Amino acid sequence: MKLHLSTWLEVEAYLKESRGIIIPIGSTEQHGPTGLIGTDAICAEAIAFGVGDAARALVAPTINVGMALHHGAFPGTMSLRPSTLILLIQDYVTGLAKAGFTQFFFINGHGGNIATMKAAFAETYAHLADLNIAGADEVKCHIANWFMCGSVYKLAKELYGDEEGSHATPSEVALTQYVYPEAIKQADLSLEVGKGHNIYGATDFRRRYPDGRMGSNPALATLEHGKQFYELAVKELTNSYLEFVR
Amino acid sequence: MKLHLSTWLEVEAYLKESRGIIIPIGSTEQHGPTGLIGTDAICAEAIAFGVGDAARALVAPTINVGMALHHGAFPGTMSLRPSTLILLIQDYVTGLAKAGFTQFFFINGHGGNIATMKAAFAETYAHLADLNIAGADEVKCHIANWFMCGSVYKLAKELYGDEEGSHATPSEVALTQYVYPEAIKQADLSLEVGKGHNIYGATDFRRRYPDGRMGSNPALATLEHGKQFYELAVKELTNSYLEFVR
Amino acid sequence: MKLHLSTWLEVEAYLKESRGIIIPIGSTEQHGPTGLIGTDAICAEAIAFGVGDAARALVAPTINVGMALHHGAFPGTMSLRPSTLILLIQDYVTGLAKAGFTQFFFINGHGGNIATMKAAFAETYAHLADLNIAGADEVKCHIANWFMCGSVYKLAKELYGDEEGSHATPSEVALTQYVYPEAIKQADLSLEVGKGHNIYGATDFRRRYPDGRMGSNPALATLEHGKQFYELAVKELTNSYLEFVR
Amino acid sequence: MKLHLSTWLEVEAYLKESRGIIIPIGSTEQHGPTGLIGTDAICAEAIAFGVGDAARALVAPTINVGMALHHGAFPGTMSLRPSTLILLIQDYVTGLAKAGFTQFFFINGHGGNIATMKAAFAETYAHLADLNIAGADEVKCHIANWFMCGSVYKLAKELYGDEEGSHATPSEVALTQYVYPEAIKQADLSLEVGKGHNIYGATDFRRRYPDGRMGSNPALATLEHGKQFYELAVKELTNSYLEFVR
Amino acid sequence: MKLHLSTWLEVEAYLKESRGIIIPIGSTEQHGPTGLIGTDAICAEAIAFGVGDAARALVAPTINVGMALHHGAFPGTMSLRPSTLILLIQDYVTGLAKAGFTQFFFINGHGGNIATMKAAFAETYAHLADLNIAGADEVKCHIANWFMCGSVYKLAKELYGDEEGSHATPSEVALTQYVYPEAIKQADLSLEVGKGHNIYGATDFRRRYPDGRMGSNPALATLEHGKQFYELAVKELTNSYLEFVR
Amino acid sequence: MKLHLSTWLEVEAYLKESRGIIIPIGSTEQHGPTGLIGTDAICAEAIAFGVGDAARALVAPTINVGMALHHGAFPGTMSLRPSTLILLIQDYVTGLAKAGFTQFFFINGHGGNIATMKAAFAETYAHLADLNIAGADEVKCHIANWFMCGSVYKLAKELYGDEEGSHATPSEVALTQYVYPEAIKQADLSLEVGKGHNIYGATDFRRRYPDGRMGSNPALATLEHGKQFYELAVKELTNSYLEFVR
Repeated sequence: MKLHLSTWLEVEAYLKESRGIIIPIGSTEQHGPTGLIGTDAICAEAIAFGVGDAARALVAPTINVGMALHHGAFPGTMSLRPSTLILLIQDYVTGLAKAGFTQFFFINGHGGNIATMKAAFAETYAHLADLNIAGADEVKCHIANWFMCGSVYKLAKELYGDEEGSHATPSEVALTQYVYPEAIKQADLSLEVGKGHNIYGATDFRRRYPDGRMGSNPALATLEHGKQFYELAVKELTNSYLEFVR
Repeated sequence: MKLHLSTWLEVEAYLKESRGIIIPIGSTEQHGPTGLIGTDAICAEAIAFGVGDAARALVAPTINVGMALHHGAFPGTMSLRPSTLILLIQDYVTGLAKAGFTQFFFINGHGGNIATMKAAFAETYAHLADLNIAGADEVKCHIANWFMCGSVYKLAKELYGDEEGSHATPSEVALTQYVYPEAIKQADLSLEVGKGHNIYGATDFRRRYPDGRMGSNPALATLEHGKQFYELAVKELTNSYLEFVR
Repeated sequence: MKLHLSTWLEVEAYLKESRGIIIPIGSTEQHGPTGLIGTDAICAEAIAFGVGDAARALVAPTINVGMALHHGAFPGTMSLRPSTLILLIQDYVTGLAKAGFTQFFFINGHGGNIATMKAAFAETYAHLADLNIAGADEVKCHIANWFMCGSVYKLAKELYGDEEGSHATPSEVALTQYVYPEAIKQADLSLEVGKGHNIYGATDFRRRYPDGRMGSNPALATLEHGKQFYELAVKELTNSYLEFVR
Repeated sequence: MKLHLSTWLEVEAYLKESRGIIIPIGSTEQHGPTGLIGTDAICAEAIAFGVGDAARALVAPTINVGMALHHGAFPGTMSLRPSTLILLIQDYVTGLAKAGFTQFFFINGHGGNIATMKAAFAETYAHLADLNIAGADEVKCHIANWFMCGSVYKLAKELYGDEEGSHATPSEVALTQYVYPEAIKQADLSLEVGKGHNIYGATDFRRRYPDGRMGSNPALATLEHGKQFYELAVKELTNSYLEFVR
Repeated sequence: MKLHLSTWLEVEAYLKESRGIIIPIGSTEQHGPTGLIGTDAICAEAIAFGVGDAARALVAPTINVGMALHHGAFPGTMSLRPSTLILLIQDYVTGLAKAGFTQFFFINGHGGNIATMKAAFAETYAHLADLNIAGADEVKCHIANWFMCGSVYKLAKELYGDEEGSHATPSEVALTQYVYPEAIKQADLSLEVGKGHNIYGATDFRRRYPDGRMGSNPALATLEHGKQFYELAVKELTNSYLEFVR
Repeated sequence: MKLHLSTWLEVEAYLKESRGIIIPIGSTEQHGPTGLIGTDAICAEAIAFGVGDAARALVAPTINVGMALHHGAFPGTMSLRPSTLILLIQDYVTGLAKAGFTQFFFINGHGGNIATMKAAFAETYAHLADLNIAGADEVKCHIANWFMCGSVYKLAKELYGDEEGSHATPSEVALTQYVYPEAIKQADLSLEVGKGHNIYGATDFRRRYPDGRMGSNPALATLEHGKQFYELAVKELTNSYLEFVR
């Protein structure tokens, strides 16, 4: 059940059955020479819709732009500052909590969002406590990173080994190929790829990772792999969601 | 050209031809008993993609949640506070301006966003001037409200007269029917509808507009009307965009 | 009744009769070669005092500095950033609402304030709801732009036609001449005047409007016109105020 | 020279002679049963205009609402939170500094403003340094409290002794009588008056100072005293200003 | 009783006896060629522990970094912006107030903190009132500047006369020598020392006070003096604390 | 080398040799019935001083209060909101970066700080880039969690197995016993201990973890263990630091 395709009367009815909502969150950032800039949002959204269907859960609109400041030296990257993302998440959760939602299940497609999301949750719990909203102390937020699902991780290792890398990975590229087969890209990938450097500012990042990939070989990705990743992630996160809202 | 389906290399190439980008912005808010909560985002996004195709312009991901605090007493509504939306827009524009974009064409689906967007633009121009980014004083932001296109407005008056109203209008409902025919809703609409009240806080709004409609009769909407509105808006805003970036 | 010339005992007594208050808001910005930098504040304040007298309404002190960032490339302009003005208005309204005021009638002298004011009102309604102040959901804020009064607009068109322009207009200059006859300025006005450009950042504005005027010919202003504008605006806004607080 | 009654061309000319500007700052707060709510703004503004005339200095519009949260339990009080006032002062100074002003002489009418103003100055100096504005490291802000002028203090002690008190004082009431003789108020003043308590929150303040006065007997004020205070303050602060901008 | 060396059970028990807490606040800033960068924090903390012991009061951890932006042109200085320090103090007091503390006795070692602390207190009282915490209107914050104790001031004058100066003073240097005899520093001190200049931005400060001292001769300090200052301050502030929480 | 016990001249000299600085960060929060409220700060500070000695590195003053909102329902807990901690870290790093420091090695004692610290680093890199400070793109911030050192973790498992738990652990309690043998606490510990629950708001936390421990048995801690943990952590983090600044 997609929030965007529902009416308020349907949401009112839903709230009599459930207090849970799924919020997909991605990023808009470079993903190497062949990865889509929307990769993280595309993956999170597709999986969220799958989980929503499987678990009969409401799915909110996707947070398309997340925390990607370190990718900022590549054109096309968009980012919220962490302080802005914290406010955005606080506004989302607070508004929905006033309507009666208490279980917020964020399906996340970008590792760089995690720290700021956790900070935002802490800020939000405290904010809600100050507002004395009914049921504020029942509010729970959870981050479900699809790429860290055990089954996904295992398959990626089997298929790609070390060439999975940690950004612009073949697994996420495969998933976007499955979702958008019309947008499969070709480009020469140098054999040498930046790897193992810590992440600091945007200028430094581009120095270390000149084509944007982090230790990955996205040329290994196939649409069929993408289908497998999608199905594994939907299955595993559906279980996680159902446990979360139980 | 959709930013989410592009690579950073493609954006780099695009920037050699154009400094313009289209940013759809909608809202996630009640639209009466039969209107979709995502109406404003759906319309803005669909039209933005149409304009992007016609004008060969890059289209950024949609801002799905806008300024809808006054609809907050209806479940399913989500909103950013104006102060958060200002920061979000500033982050969007600043990041893209650092990459070389200077012409920001926001295709907007929600009247309630306009004031905050204008405030955000003023804040952002001043912010950019402080950063001394190359070309900061060339940055221009424009709001294109699809529902205020002359051709759209004219057709709505012809088709619906006064029953167009000002929220949950048949014209926007028609457009969502065209985009999502699988999500056409039915519900009893009272003959009496709130009308003509000023907008203050959320509680007051629901008192004045008990089912969420503002003077409208969305039962008049048809999918075919939606197609007409779509085509008129795309045509008119394509011209606007081309003039804007000229 | 001017708040600044009242005691708190008088305000306490006033609150037994009325919940309404008038807040003049202007700007401190260039108004062309002959217009006073304080034009917008002077006009708003004078009219507010007139309405206050006619409607026996309390008038708060004038917000002298508004949102005029786009005029910032001309010396003497002062401005709040939109985010600051939002906080200021929120502080004003929240404090007065705690004392029992619920009807806030802003008499505005500057078009550039409107968007930020509307954003501020939305932010404030939500803030008040969070505070659980008694009567918070009765709080209403209204913008009354004196220069958009029907009677004022009509007279300006009659007297000046297209030479009214949209900034440093003869109508507002006339009104300041009526209020401050000792400060009528003379300067050569070029025949050519910037006109019809959109407003972006401050540097761009000065490029487009080199002497600060926007399509206007303030040399047409006379003190007698000013008196007429004053009287029309006071009459029309007195009616608006009385309707607003009814 | 009043900024509000000047044109930008006159300000441009002024800046060739001087980098100094006077900014009056007051407050809008209860001043006991007979003191005007605008007392602090009225005094600061009147003296600022006097100093402006004597020193041929530009006078900005008055900051009418300052930091008066502790008076908030009396109706009619308006206040900015300290964090808002800091932003306001930063916006004022930053904008004027960009135009070339470097010497900011605040004539202050309210003791409760001082701490926040000092905090604001520190914040602003650091902000300006970050902006790399030409001459940013020449910017100097000064607080001139008229009520702490040696000559004013001496006269108040002579005329009123201990009955001067520290809020709603006869000296400030006298000054407002001189400026606004039409607004001299009468009310019974209890012989007993709150005195010597520290200032904490607004509720506590009203408990300690039930009629708003702090140890003062404003019934001693006369219009003639007010004239004397005015003249002493203008003379002393004119000298201070001239020394400050030297 | 040091909060850091207590358990939450001990704090729970303490709250049955007392609502008071001591919070030491210092600064991390240059103190001339021989003064320790931590001087203000060291002094405040040592005295706070002494007062805590004498008054059986709980002592919170020290705020080591305060408002020292004007010392920022000397390496080793650290500072919060005033706006950050306000938030920090608000967070400290709000959290402790929720647990039941109402009397906050800040022992301060740095004059530059005072203004921002006062602003923070005002901001916090208002914030607490909005939260409707039980007992919020009993919350009181007090600044006790050890260097302004009558007995301390008197001894400093006796020992050093005018050479006490106002920053990097022999009295505070002496106190650090008493606390950290292993960290007594030697350096050539020029006979000439900056003196009497107002404080503006950091660059200006270093121009006026090239070695960091403000009119002081810290070479006069001895460890024995430090012991005397310590004992005087502890005695005087213990009395102040006991009176404050009575 | 402790910053607090250094002079600015010594820091100036240090900067000719090194651009690195160690910043200890802890927390002030309940640590179960027998753990010290200052545990996380005590451990981080002690180890930081050890590393500073071993690596001849400068050690800044400890951030005593971190992000511990979830412990807020236990008296004695103090916390910054994440948004405040972000500003604090940004102020720290920005000020030190202006003086020439580029390598910031945070020794952290509290898992709950990590997310907010990472968010703060991202925010700070972007902020520094906007300021155009020389060398801003060389700034690197690193979190070194002493409790996650391989050697520490291994010893804790050997000594305590599953009874190490994840908060109020015997390892951290042991370390505080080594540092403050005079503050070893005794209290009855229930055999049953909360375990395995996710962390949401403060009220929920106390429901799940009624005495504050998270799956730990701090009664196993000994001072001798503490010495071992201290030495292992200092050794391992000294190597990490030296590698970081290489």
